[in-house]
Amino acid sequence: MNDALVSLEQGMAGNGLDALLVTDPKHVYYLTGFASNPHERFLGLLLIRGEEPVLIVPALDSEAAHAASSVQTILTHSDTDNPYELLKSRFVGTAPGTIGIEKEHFSVSRYELLTAAVPAGSFSDIGPLLRAMRARKTPEEISRMKHAAELIEEVLRRGLSHIKNGVTEIELVAELEYLMKKVGASGPSFDTMVLSGPNTALPHGVPGDRIIQQGDLLMFDMGVYAAGYASDITRTFAVGEIDSKLVEIYNTVLAANMAGIAASRAGATFGSVDKAARDVIEAAGYGEYFMHRVGHGLGMDTHEYPSLHGLNTDIIENGNVFTVEPGIYVPGLGGVRIEDDVFITAEGPVTLTSFPKELTVLHL
Amino acid sequence: MNDALVSLEQGMAGNGLDALLVTDPKHVYYLTGFASNPHERFLGLLLIRGEEPVLIVPALDSEAAHAASSVQTILTHSDTDNPYELLKSRFVGTAPGTIGIEKEHFSVSRYELLTAAVPAGSFSDIGPLLRAMRARKTPEEISRMKHAAELIEEVLRRGLSHIKNGVTEIELVAELEYLMKKVGASGPSFDTMVLSGPNTALPHGVPGDRIIQQGDLLMFDMGVYAAGYASDITRTFAVGEIDSKLVEIYNTVLAANMAGIAASRAGATFGSVDKAARDVIEAAGYGEYFMHRVGHGLGMDTHEYPSLHGLNTDIIENGNVFTVEPGIYVPGLGGVRIEDDVFITAEGPVTLTSFPKELTVLHL
Repeated sequence: MNDALVSLEQGMAGNGLDALLVTDPKHVYYLTGFASNPHERFLGLLLIRGEEPVLIVPALDSEAAHAASSVQTILTHSDTDNPYELLKSRFVGTAPGTIGIEKEHFSVSRYELLTAAVPAGSFSDIGPLLRAMRARKTPEEISRMKHAAELIEEVLRRGLSHIKNGVTEIELVAELEYLMKKVGASGPSFDTMVLSGPNTALPHGVPGDRIIQQGDLLMFDMGVYAAGYASDITRTFAVGEIDSKLVEIYNTVLAANMAGIAASRAGATFGSVDKAARDVIEAAGYGEYFMHRVGHGLGMDTHEYPSLHGLNTDIIENGNVFTVEPGIYVPGLGGVRIEDDVFITAEGPVTLTSFPKELTVLHL
Repeated sequence: MNDALVSLEQGMAGNGLDALLVTDPKHVYYLTGFASNPHERFLGLLLIRGEEPVLIVPALDSEAAHAASSVQTILTHSDTDNPYELLKSRFVGTAPGTIGIEKEHFSVSRYELLTAAVPAGSFSDIGPLLRAMRARKTPEEISRMKHAAELIEEVLRRGLSHIKNGVTEIELVAELEYLMKKVGASGPSFDTMVLSGPNTALPHGVPGDRIIQQGDLLMFDMGVYAAGYASDITRTFAVGEIDSKLVEIYNTVLAANMAGIAASRAGATFGSVDKAARDVIEAAGYGEYFMHRVGHGLGMDTHEYPSLHGLNTDIIENGNVFTVEPGIYVPGLGGVRIEDDVFITAEGPVTLTSFPKELTVLHL
C-alpha cells in the first residue's frame, strides 16, 4: 500500500469515519496507483475500518487495474451489474455508521443510488481531508514533479532556438507543444502562453499572430503533465535591446520572485509569501501593476490548494509545493512575470524549476 | 429568448416541473447564449413556471453575462454572498412543488446547500429532458456545426501539403493543431490522431515518431470546436502505391460509410445505421475487423447522445446530427476508417463534411 493510503486509513478513526468511498479518478490514482477515466461507469476505492481496502472497477479495466493498483482486492462490475449492490455486499454483518464520500465530486444521481443501497447513519465529506493530504507531497510525488519541471525546461531550452525573424506567437506555441510530446510529456498542463511586446502587459493574454520584434519582451508561461503531475514555469526574455524601463521592471520582478521564495518556509503563512514579493514591487513603485496573487498549489492539478493570496493565514508545511510568480504589467509598455515551482523542506525552500533567471537577451 | 429556452419552458408543465435550475455551464450557454467557466462559483439559470427566467452569475461575470445572455434578468452574487439564499428569495410567496435539477451534474455539496435553502416537495432530474432537446439541433446550431466542419476540412486540405519525406506522425499532429488555430477554430475537439502504416490497424492508436513511408495507409481522425460546436472527420489516404488488399479494404469501408449514411433517415432506429454499414463489411468478409459502433451523436460535445450501436432502438428524428464512421482494422496489415458528420432532414441525410472520399494517393 502506498504512503497516502496508509495515512488515510490511519486517519479514519480520528475523523469519525466507519468507512469511506473515494470516487474521483484522480484520487483513486493517488491512493492506488491505478489511473483511468471510467467515463460514466463506476470506479471507487472502498475502505471499511479494520478491513482490507477494495478497489471496484468496470470489468473492461480489470486487467489494467490488476497491473497498476497497489490495492490487491479488486472487484469488477459489467455494464449489466449494479455497482451499488456490490458496495452493499461489502457491508454484510456491519451496520455502517458514518461513510465518508467526496461530496464535491459525487453527483446527486449517484448519491441517490448509494443511499438507497447502503443506508448508513450519515455521509460526511472527505474532500477537505484529501485536499490536506495532497498538499503534503511524498518523496515519490516530488520526484515526479521534479521530472515534470525538467521536461518543461528542456522544452523551453529547445524552443528558444526557434526564435527567428518573422516567427509569431502562435507558431511558437505550436512548436513548444510539439516539443512537449517529443521530450516525453503527456501533454501541456494548461494552455501554453507565448506573448510578445505590448501583449506581455496582459496577465491572461491569448497568443496570436503577432510577429516577434526587436525590442520586445517575450514571455513564456507553460507546463507539462508527466506521470500524473504538473509543472508550471514562466520566464520573460528580451529580444535584442529593450527599453531601460523594461530592464528596471525585469529586475524588480526578479527581486520579488526571490523574496517570495525566500519567505517560503514551514511555519509561515501562505499569505506572507505574497506579501514578501508584493513588498518588493510596491517599494519600487509598481504596486498597482501587480494585480494577481503570487501563486498557487501545484501537484496532480495545475491549480490546487493552497491559494497564495495575501489574506491566506493557513500555515506552510514541509512537503508543500506551490508556484511563486510575481509580475508587473504596465499597459502599453509591457509586462514581466517570473515563476518558479517551490518545494518546502526542513532545510528551507527548494525550487523544482532551475532555468536561469537573470535577464537574457535573445537575437532574431 | 432562444428557441431551446422557449421549448424548455413550454415543456415544464408536461414534465411536472414547478421550477427548474440549470447549472451545467454548457447548458446555460445552450439556453441563454452566455458561455463561461465559473470554476467553483455558482452559475445557474432558474425558471419558475409563469415567471421570467433569471440568470444567476458571479459578480465578476456580470458584464459578460449582460452582453451575451438572451435572458434579460440577471442577478449577481459576490464571493461573500450565499447564492442559495438568492435562489430562495425568488420563491417568496410560492411553495415550490417539484424543482428540476441536473442530477448528474449537481454535486452532493451543492444539493445539501440547495435543499437547506429551498425546501421543495421534491427534486427531479432534468438531464434526460435536456439530452433529448440537444439531440434535435436548431438551424443556428446546424450553421455552427457546418462551419466547424468547414474549418477542419480546410485544416486537412492544408495539412496534406506537409506530407513529405521524413515527416513523422506527431509532426503532422503538431502542424494540424497549429493550422486549427490559424483557420480560426477554438481548438481541437479531441486528441488529433494521425496514424500510418501498420499503426492504422489500432482503432485507438496514439500518434508517435513513426516516419510516413511509401506504401503506407495514412489515417487522420480529427475535429475542431468553433463557436461552441464540434466537428469530427476521418479520412484515410494511400502514400504512393499500396497493397491491393488495402485497396479492397478501402473500397469496402467506403461502401459501408455510404450505406450507413443512406440508412440515416428519420423514423429508422439508430441501430439500423450501424447494421447497414456492418452488413456491407460482413458481406465482404471483414466483419471481425470492425469492432466498434458505427458512430455517436455530435454537437456541443464531441461524443453525446445518441450512441449508434447495433442494439439502440431509439428512433432517428429530424435535426439529429451524428457521425457515421465504419472501419476495418487488420492487425499487421493496416486499417481504414472513413467518417462523416450526418445531419437528418425531412429531405434525408445531409453530410456536413464534404471532403472527397474516393481513394486518394499522396506523394512524398
